[in-house]
Amino acid sequence: MDYRTFDIPAFQTAGGVTLDLQLAYRLTGELSAARDNAILVLTSYAAQHGDAAALFAASPALDLSRYCVIVINMFGNGLSSSPSNTPSPHDGPRFPALTIRDNVACQYRLVTEHLGITRLRLVMGFSMGALQAFEWGCRYPDAVAAMLPICGAARVSPHNYLFLDGAKAALTADQTFAAGDYAEQPRVGLLAFGRVYAGWMFSQAFFRDAHYRALGLADLESVVQFAQAYFMRRDANDLLAMLWTWQHADISANTRFAGDFVAALGAIRARAIVMPGETDLYFTVADSEFEVAHMPHAELRPIRSPLGHVAGSGMDPVGKAAIDAAINELIG
Amino acid sequence: MDYRTFDIPAFQTAGGVTLDLQLAYRLTGELSAARDNAILVLTSYAAQHGDAAALFAASPALDLSRYCVIVINMFGNGLSSSPSNTPSPHDGPRFPALTIRDNVACQYRLVTEHLGITRLRLVMGFSMGALQAFEWGCRYPDAVAAMLPICGAARVSPHNYLFLDGAKAALTADQTFAAGDYAEQPRVGLLAFGRVYAGWMFSQAFFRDAHYRALGLADLESVVQFAQAYFMRRDANDLLAMLWTWQHADISANTRFAGDFVAALGAIRARAIVMPGETDLYFTVADSEFEVAHMPHAELRPIRSPLGHVAGSGMDPVGKAAIDAAINELIG
Repeated sequence: MDYRTFDIPAFQTAGGVTLDLQLAYRLTGELSAARDNAILVLTSYAAQHGDAAALFAASPALDLSRYCVIVINMFGNGLSSSPSNTPSPHDGPRFPALTIRDNVACQYRLVTEHLGITRLRLVMGFSMGALQAFEWGCRYPDAVAAMLPICGAARVSPHNYLFLDGAKAALTADQTFAAGDYAEQPRVGLLAFGRVYAGWMFSQAFFRDAHYRALGLADLESVVQFAQAYFMRRDANDLLAMLWTWQHADISANTRFAGDFVAALGAIRARAIVMPGETDLYFTVADSEFEVAHMPHAELRPIRSPLGHVAGSGMDPVGKAAIDAAINELIG
Repeated sequence: MDYRTFDIPAFQTAGGVTLDLQLAYRLTGELSAARDNAILVLTSYAAQHGDAAALFAASPALDLSRYCVIVINMFGNGLSSSPSNTPSPHDGPRFPALTIRDNVACQYRLVTEHLGITRLRLVMGFSMGALQAFEWGCRYPDAVAAMLPICGAARVSPHNYLFLDGAKAALTADQTFAAGDYAEQPRVGLLAFGRVYAGWMFSQAFFRDAHYRALGLADLESVVQFAQAYFMRRDANDLLAMLWTWQHADISANTRFAGDFVAALGAIRARAIVMPGETDLYFTVADSEFEVAHMPHAELRPIRSPLGHVAGSGMDPVGKAAIDAAINELIG
């Protein structure tokens, strides 16, 4: 087992449910005596800590040997508490809806109470990891020196919500899903989910100019199969739990900000480099522009790649080089 | 009944199937004695001639009172031969795959043999109608004086193919679809199809800036319901038949051009105004640019609207004004 766990007994969710939760996390490198060399990396949709490692993998431009990298698995990803690993009465489709805020509240306890860190050098993440990074920056400004949200947002856009809703509808159209109480994984629905999702992950130019070849994928159908395999590592209810979390991401959806998104952005004090993908079909540069305009210490730095959303995953050499440079700047 | 029919007995499809086909069409206005005032309008996905009328509806800028407008329904749309109205052995899922080329070959017989027209003043269409307009211009250059393809392409892009494949997967994930031999319409699958499709029809900005209100739609879910209702007017097998036709559109996929797309574009002699939607998520401006660069008498004129693909449907006042102006120029 390459990860540790942290228990949060009797956590009360934003939705008012109380249950025992557990976070799975991995440390890479040594925490310094002063506990001032920690970088927090949050996970993306359907990813686990092993996937997130692609974001901060060593490269000619990136040396994190003096840092301690903490990757915390998101709820619903099959390692931290999820529909698939939670006992009755919160198992499967009865697993409560957890927000990004719920995730970050638990992560904060792990980082501060358990690891004894009061200030993180950097909080970063790709996609849903970026949603969590924004929440960290907004809610715990004293604990975040710098942040690097990659291909994400501080608030999910309506169009992004809709694309996810379409993928969900494809999964649940399979009657073997049985409202989440399936006897076995709803294979046809999961395959449909992956096929719908594959259309959104990349860009039009990615397919037009066959950039998939650089990823070792031979053709269009190979791209679809790549997406299907990526998501089918996970349980169907787990996928839908994370999807709900994604759809409801909004740093201002709480009693403090009461939906005042501009005020919530203004509360982020960390130095930030916000990196949307120039060809991302759901986290758009236009949305990031708005965010950066209302964040006190933020810079907009789009990734110039045809790989769409995947530009920020660590798989894209262009995106990875841009991420490496940004990490160096923010921790330097 | 507001349309007429034209029979094509024993038509041999590009796929090698022989069957009796019927086209449904509507004439608006009088054909002149010289038969030189005809405008041909082709139908878009899931549309019928009544829907296409939005494209050439009279406006302060458009007077077609001296013209005869012929709208021909595409195969699969429920009026022309379709899975839902064709007798055994070609009924339902046994209806043969028909290409854009098959459609246009039959349309050509209707226009020339039956209506006695040797040259059309204008061939136009939105979306799949544009696919057919390109095929007309390429295959029958002597018969087409001018063409106006709106939010379409001469060859479907791989990304467009994939988005359609995702919507199809959502529909067919519903087990009541039963490989096309359903006892009743697969309602859950059709609803999922509409929800997936709704994410593609418009643009990110359409949702971000609530442009749906200008279409009389209150919120995101109303947009989804609009899309669902639009497609659920049709039979599931009919939707899939048209979808296959769309996915395989390519003016060069035939023995004459053998896949030489540039040569096929060069064979289009009509004066053309090619109108992609600037924010269209599947028929992109970049693809239209390539086409126009290889067509001898074509002009690229993107529609500047946030309505995405729907900008070219006739529903968008910005798009409709641009279409009206282009029609006037091309027939003037």
